[in-house]
Amino acid sequence: MTSEKRYADGETYGYQLNLKSLLKKPLDNCPEREIVYRDSRRLTYRTLNERIHRLASALRQWDVGANHTVAVMDVDSHRYLECFFAIPMMGASLQTVNWRLSPDQIVYTINHSEAQTMLVYRDFLPIVEKVRDRLKNIRHIIIMTDDGNMPSSPLNVAGEYDALLAAGEPAFDFPDLDEHTRATLFYTTGTTGNPKGVYFSHRQLMLHTLATAVEFGCYDTIGRFRSNDVYMPLTPMFHVHAWGMPYVATLLGAKQVYPGTYEPALILELIRRHGVTFSHCVPTILQMILTHADAKTTDLSNWKIVIGGARLPKGLARTARDRSIDIHAGYGMSETCPVMTLATPKEDALNKSSEETLDIIIKTGKPAPLVEVEVMDSKGRILPHDGKSTGEVVMRSPWLTAGYLKSPVNSAELWRNGWLHSGDVGYIDKENYLQITDRIKDVIKSGGEWISSLDLENILSQHESVLESAAIGIPDPKWGERPLMLVTLKPKYQGKVDADALRRHMTRAAQAGKLPRYGISERFEFVEAIAKTSVGKYDKKFLRQQYGASEPYNESAV
Amino acid sequence: MTSEKRYADGETYGYQLNLKSLLKKPLDNCPEREIVYRDSRRLTYRTLNERIHRLASALRQWDVGANHTVAVMDVDSHRYLECFFAIPMMGASLQTVNWRLSPDQIVYTINHSEAQTMLVYRDFLPIVEKVRDRLKNIRHIIIMTDDGNMPSSPLNVAGEYDALLAAGEPAFDFPDLDEHTRATLFYTTGTTGNPKGVYFSHRQLMLHTLATAVEFGCYDTIGRFRSNDVYMPLTPMFHVHAWGMPYVATLLGAKQVYPGTYEPALILELIRRHGVTFSHCVPTILQMILTHADAKTTDLSNWKIVIGGARLPKGLARTARDRSIDIHAGYGMSETCPVMTLATPKEDALNKSSEETLDIIIKTGKPAPLVEVEVMDSKGRILPHDGKSTGEVVMRSPWLTAGYLKSPVNSAELWRNGWLHSGDVGYIDKENYLQITDRIKDVIKSGGEWISSLDLENILSQHESVLESAAIGIPDPKWGERPLMLVTLKPKYQGKVDADALRRHMTRAAQAGKLPRYGISERFEFVEAIAKTSVGKYDKKFLRQQYGASEPYNESAV
Repeated sequence: MTSEKRYADGETYGYQLNLKSLLKKPLDNCPEREIVYRDSRRLTYRTLNERIHRLASALRQWDVGANHTVAVMDVDSHRYLECFFAIPMMGASLQTVNWRLSPDQIVYTINHSEAQTMLVYRDFLPIVEKVRDRLKNIRHIIIMTDDGNMPSSPLNVAGEYDALLAAGEPAFDFPDLDEHTRATLFYTTGTTGNPKGVYFSHRQLMLHTLATAVEFGCYDTIGRFRSNDVYMPLTPMFHVHAWGMPYVATLLGAKQVYPGTYEPALILELIRRHGVTFSHCVPTILQMILTHADAKTTDLSNWKIVIGGARLPKGLARTARDRSIDIHAGYGMSETCPVMTLATPKEDALNKSSEETLDIIIKTGKPAPLVEVEVMDSKGRILPHDGKSTGEVVMRSPWLTAGYLKSPVNSAELWRNGWLHSGDVGYIDKENYLQITDRIKDVIKSGGEWISSLDLENILSQHESVLESAAIGIPDPKWGERPLMLVTLKPKYQGKVDADALRRHMTRAAQAGKLPRYGISERFEFVEAIAKTSVGKYDKKFLRQQYGASEPYNESAV
Repeated sequence: MTSEKRYADGETYGYQLNLKSLLKKPLDNCPEREIVYRDSRRLTYRTLNERIHRLASALRQWDVGANHTVAVMDVDSHRYLECFFAIPMMGASLQTVNWRLSPDQIVYTINHSEAQTMLVYRDFLPIVEKVRDRLKNIRHIIIMTDDGNMPSSPLNVAGEYDALLAAGEPAFDFPDLDEHTRATLFYTTGTTGNPKGVYFSHRQLMLHTLATAVEFGCYDTIGRFRSNDVYMPLTPMFHVHAWGMPYVATLLGAKQVYPGTYEPALILELIRRHGVTFSHCVPTILQMILTHADAKTTDLSNWKIVIGGARLPKGLARTARDRSIDIHAGYGMSETCPVMTLATPKEDALNKSSEETLDIIIKTGKPAPLVEVEVMDSKGRILPHDGKSTGEVVMRSPWLTAGYLKSPVNSAELWRNGWLHSGDVGYIDKENYLQITDRIKDVIKSGGEWISSLDLENILSQHESVLESAAIGIPDPKWGERPLMLVTLKPKYQGKVDADALRRHMTRAAQAGKLPRYGISERFEFVEAIAKTSVGKYDKKFLRQQYGASEPYNESAV
């Protein structure tokens, strides 16, 4: 079979950006370099390439190709990497299913995407078995295993992944796709409503890959990711393509290590055994690794890690640097593919003191190539880079989702004035670093000023008695809103600390310039627990309802 | 003035690849880093950016914008760099005029491009004054000087460059262009016919810049070009945008040094004074620099240089490495923007002996990201990568010229079977390195085999008596063609060496495996001089006619 079109003399080859081109460099440079999955599997780039072709040849029998979506539920593995390439390269869409969602949400996302084929790792079979009859469009289910042994299942199963590859052909003629062909889609969840689908084309992923490679490879600063690095993702592959880094790692031909699920002991063992040098994760994963007993006996001095998904706490950054880990923060969203900004020091700041460096690397960051980041006020005006003008973070780049799948109302919220609206609030300093201060729906609007609820919480948390605190805006006849602080105290302080003590603490912070005066809360509520969402964040929507504040403003009006 | 369009809610910003985005990174990272022109001028990225805006604001008065071509005749300078950005960013085409052409050819190219505005460095005024009345479309001429002093000229001149910038506005609202907008054009010359125009869009230059930055920055091998490097081009800016490297250097925010014309003493002085670390040039320029007296007293151990435009001779590579210069070859053409392949060692070859490394770095090279290079036989079949199957080098990538400007016949020669045909002959080895062996029009076709005229010349040149030698194919009733060697002898060997001696030398080379047996020439002609073209290459077309060979085959039929 060949899809090669015939060209007339003088007819240019209209080169389209296509994920398949990423596989050429490692095959040229380092075909025998390894791709490792836990303890159980070692491929090379040569065998990866062959398996991608075999996978496509196997999937072809179920009409995987244009207008076909394949939903994948797998842990981080070499299989997932194969799917990252083979499925989009066939012209189909890869749906990366978030297996941390509730079964109902999983059903919703797979029905909403209209996926027809599904690849499921054996550990997730119980979920799929339970909801199989509600998956309306799924026609074929393929089981992924580590050992090739097909588990018994009441499902009507099309085959086992490795067996299908073995039966497939090592050659497959991937088509030359239009670069705007959709390559991937996945769902992002908010605190309310159904998950929303975002999607990315070959062009978007290719430009993201090239620009991210330039950002991490071409500038002389900390946190470099180049061909000699050993890469291990610690952000799940279902989550924004593991930041798109598996595509970058493949272009570089770097050794890749896939850890399955995230077990600290195994992660540390993989770091030791394979000499892992580059990873990325949320703060809690790093915290979990560093506090594991084996961390003490693991040399982490060659490990570079980028932190995203949540603000990098200064304390965690300090702890990591004390362990000689090369650490800095980054920023992006599901909607942005995701890489937008990185908090690397500029070259002229590389000799700063350790404390000054800490303050740089925990910022939200400077934009990557081809990324425009601005802060916009409620009237759609772009605000100056003065380190104080605060507004909604808005972005442009060639790899932002065109909208939410089949959701024009949400898409119209996302794209306004020709900018993608992040829902994050922040400012840009004179050095062009972005600093996000809050989610826009959590910001407290008092007398025309925006008060960051995160700032209030951070400051209050530094009082010795405070276990947790959440700041919410409640209606105020004079100021519009004023902050209310919900507080849980550490056991030994319970009943021994009052609102005055906490207010004095906040006043001192304001006197020290860490907080505007209008940010000092009048009202503190001591509670036994603060309501949280399923992913462990404060459920501020619920808290606002609980404390008498109707939703104070419409996000879309900001 | 603003060109900002209005966006409806939900309307995505259709990000188009545009050269203007390259200026963002240096402004974020290193606005005060320098851009230097000889002894006379120092800018920073901040002032570069301002001057680009001023230039656009000044040019706007002459309707420079869409459908307008601006011809620039300048030496390598900060001014040229400003034109590299400002003119395409306005939506106009930048024509980089090759001032080494004859006045007739210069007239031809400027008339053919239909350029309406011209920017001319004062040293080139005598040429322009002589041909002014033949430049049919030129309406405005702006003079570029180093000192701001306007020379007296019979030309009707619109102004002096720096004076126009001073009168311009520091703000200019560059439009969001369709990425397929033509950004640059220039002319390539062959041994026959008129110069041919090639042209590149914003999209092509942007993808070339990103992929070239990845190629030079992200792989751990020799010859790296990253933000801390100090860049000085030694390939003229009129020649394929100085390999597109000024765009890469700007994206990196590297310090840039522009040397004007190429005077070895000044080049060496600039290397010393500014700590230049990265350059590119043809072999003869490097030879000229290394043989200059000042080279002995200049530390070149931090200098990285990429050689293109002609084969890197092993002797020159060895000499450079003996001076601790980091050197390797690269390949590209005017038609290819140009970067295609680089002869960097793979990571697993970095520890090879110096002699083995020499053999790698003088190859034609491995493809850069997004570049496909193959070798094709006369029937359009792609040949195996076996180190011996020889055919025409064909290429695909997103940045190849769409054709020759207003020249469908030549364009149909260039683009056949959906591949750009280079006119070069070579093979690809098992390690995926391309080796070019000849120009297709100079290759000798004997008994169905292709014999590289360059190989024959190289081998004969190694005989102690030979000063120069040229190999041409002459008709042969049995074999189709057989090689004829034209030879000039060194003075002291004249009359003392005969054809038998040279034939024995070639036979020994064949026995040593350096030449196929069918490459041993039967016929040697001793001559006083070998005819050369105006650029110093053997004029093989003339030589073939002189020695009784009609043009042996049609290039387009290969």
